[in-house]
Amino acid sequence: MNITKAVITAAGETQRNLPLQTLVDRDGAEKSVLQILIEEVLRAQIEEICLVIRPGDESAYRNVAGGLDGRLHFAYQTEPRGYGHAIACAGEFVGSEPFLHLVGDHLYISRTEKGCAEQLVEIAAVEECAVSSVQATREHLLPFYGAIGGHHEPEKPKLYRIENVIEKPTPTEAEQRLIVSGLRAGYYFCFFGMHVLTPTVMEILQQKLADNAERVTLSDALTELAKREKYLALEQTDWRYDVGVKYGLLNAQLALALSGKDRDDVLSMLLGLFATRELGERGK
Amino acid sequence: MNITKAVITAAGETQRNLPLQTLVDRDGAEKSVLQILIEEVLRAQIEEICLVIRPGDESAYRNVAGGLDGRLHFAYQTEPRGYGHAIACAGEFVGSEPFLHLVGDHLYISRTEKGCAEQLVEIAAVEECAVSSVQATREHLLPFYGAIGGHHEPEKPKLYRIENVIEKPTPTEAEQRLIVSGLRAGYYFCFFGMHVLTPTVMEILQQKLADNAERVTLSDALTELAKREKYLALEQTDWRYDVGVKYGLLNAQLALALSGKDRDDVLSMLLGLFATRELGERGK
Repeated sequence: MNITKAVITAAGETQRNLPLQTLVDRDGAEKSVLQILIEEVLRAQIEEICLVIRPGDESAYRNVAGGLDGRLHFAYQTEPRGYGHAIACAGEFVGSEPFLHLVGDHLYISRTEKGCAEQLVEIAAVEECAVSSVQATREHLLPFYGAIGGHHEPEKPKLYRIENVIEKPTPTEAEQRLIVSGLRAGYYFCFFGMHVLTPTVMEILQQKLADNAERVTLSDALTELAKREKYLALEQTDWRYDVGVKYGLLNAQLALALSGKDRDDVLSMLLGLFATRELGERGK
Repeated sequence: MNITKAVITAAGETQRNLPLQTLVDRDGAEKSVLQILIEEVLRAQIEEICLVIRPGDESAYRNVAGGLDGRLHFAYQTEPRGYGHAIACAGEFVGSEPFLHLVGDHLYISRTEKGCAEQLVEIAAVEECAVSSVQATREHLLPFYGAIGGHHEPEKPKLYRIENVIEKPTPTEAEQRLIVSGLRAGYYFCFFGMHVLTPTVMEILQQKLADNAERVTLSDALTELAKREKYLALEQTDWRYDVGVKYGLLNAQLALALSGKDRDDVLSMLLGLFATRELGERGK
């Protein structure tokens, strides 16, 4: 299976400004969140990217793409019919091919030389099926994520066969349907915001929209996918930062800085800030 | 002297994206840098604000004004002729009145209930002259700022009569022309990025532009102003953060958070980040 396309969604009311935010990346260069995401996709050997946005936001996005806007296609979500609908808006771009999907309000920081998307795309190409990145997540965080249930794939250390998908499960639902053996008690596999999806997902989404569903979530479609096709989860132990939550940009910036080339400078800056602000030392 | 107008400059190539950045303010609310600046101006009882921007940037600014865009006027800098030229572009808006001026890439954090701009505007109204906020700054930082020389105003603790203005002085120039008695050795008064300016400043700027100067700095005009009119410096001991430098947004965000209502949450977040990243503690 050859994955040559990526879809990034950024049309949500609270999401649309996030890819425009500026951060200093691990390499010490100032970049927009969008540019960091584009670079993550390019590292996975994918060169065609479709951004799903609100009409009118295109020029702002092009301006912050750091010269990579030649790689970008745009699709427009003209009504707020949910996350699944946003992905379906890229249907024409995707055609009948598998594609990588990232959300525009997360940043991914790999612990290794290999990018998070790169790892995922390689696994999906070998397994020839849809694969979602997941992360072991404590029970009290379930209200914020989609979560999966399933079982370990024999002989494949980080891969799980997905049987159930539930969006923001209650603890009871999770305990009944999402236990994955081998995972520490009180932990569940939650989505990491990164998936390789097959044309079947687009078909399911289009069907739900044609049935006049008011809002369509991605989790709804993935629940259906697990019934129709082989569908795997890849356990990621890398870091993922949601820049859409309060202080999410601060958290992501500190995480980038502490894992990058400016680590010592930023630690000094933190110390300087504490010395000045907390101890009251000032010039004069 | 009644100050009813403010001019914020944000047309520089590296500046124009900065007011669009999102930060969490001291009150715990997510706001753009622009909205934080508008609120700073409104606290000083000024209700008409002119933003000097590049043509085409207006809608992006309106989008992030947090519902305050009714206060905004726009002036356009169509060629890069310097900071002084940017201010002169607001000439029609200002007319023959004094005005508050802030730069769009700095954030100001007051140590007291009174805002930084509010303090400055009150002093200028009483003194009936141009007043620039300044801050005691170590010699090694002179390459980054405009600096002033002058002498203390009798009976007025934080006010200085300005005699010289030099943009980015060398240490030798500073030692010869910018010593201010009473200031600790090795410190100079540098601009804080906030001024109340008189119509004379606009006249001087217009004259320099009419003389076909290729680039006009504000410091050039202020040097001239000191020769023509009473012109004071107000020493600010508040904090000013340049969000245009590398890690400037991070620094400003941490400073806002540590002086605001979310202080404890952010300290916990910092500790969590260090615990996770530095000590390697992860779920599973």
